[in-house]
Amino acid sequence: MARIAATPAPPYYAVIFTSRRTEDRAGYAETAARMLALAAEQRGYLGVEQAEDGELGMTVSYWDSLEAITAWRENVEHRMAQAQGKERWYEGFAVRVCRVERAYDFEREA
Amino acid sequence: MARIAATPAPPYYAVIFTSRRTEDRAGYAETAARMLALAAEQRGYLGVEQAEDGELGMTVSYWDSLEAITAWRENVEHRMAQAQGKERWYEGFAVRVCRVERAYDFEREA
Repeated sequence: MARIAATPAPPYYAVIFTSRRTEDRAGYAETAARMLALAAEQRGYLGVEQAEDGELGMTVSYWDSLEAITAWRENVEHRMAQAQGKERWYEGFAVRVCRVERAYDFEREA
Repeated sequence: MARIAATPAPPYYAVIFTSRRTEDRAGYAETAARMLALAAEQRGYLGVEQAEDGELGMTVSYWDSLEAITAWRENVEHRMAQAQGKERWYEGFAVRVCRVERAYDFEREA
């Protein structure tokens, strides 16, 4: 998943999820992978970017509307994963829902 | 820097910087650390979050206005670092300027 998401021209929406993990890692990787796959199936999904350095995890997902973000937040399987996250895997996290106003890219020439 | 940024209530602004690095790492860490310190001195800076897993780097900086973001982008020392980044350190990157509309936190009880 270590790719820069190919998103359309703004405006669109982003959810910035920043987390600190507990020591309890049982089941985390499987659930995280399942959530990435499930998110990608949702209506309005545009892409995801993710990096984790052991201390801090960052996942930014991109969506075409606030309605798509709300629907994903309320997805039943996602809600179960959120509950497990609060119970076991996360020391703390922040969720920020944003409207992407401007964007630009750089790609090195071959 | 591996912390969740303590940001105020929305609205405020975020710059999502997602990058893939080249093999050339000479001088990168020093410049990256200097840019974090310099950003923190700018008017309107609210905080930063950063994670890097070797393949993909993600830095999200938070600002109180679009004007603050523009001023930081145009900062002379920052512009020199940007030029070095394109010349040497980055295979590719994406910059997304966002307005944070909603936010919430979770913190595990002690």
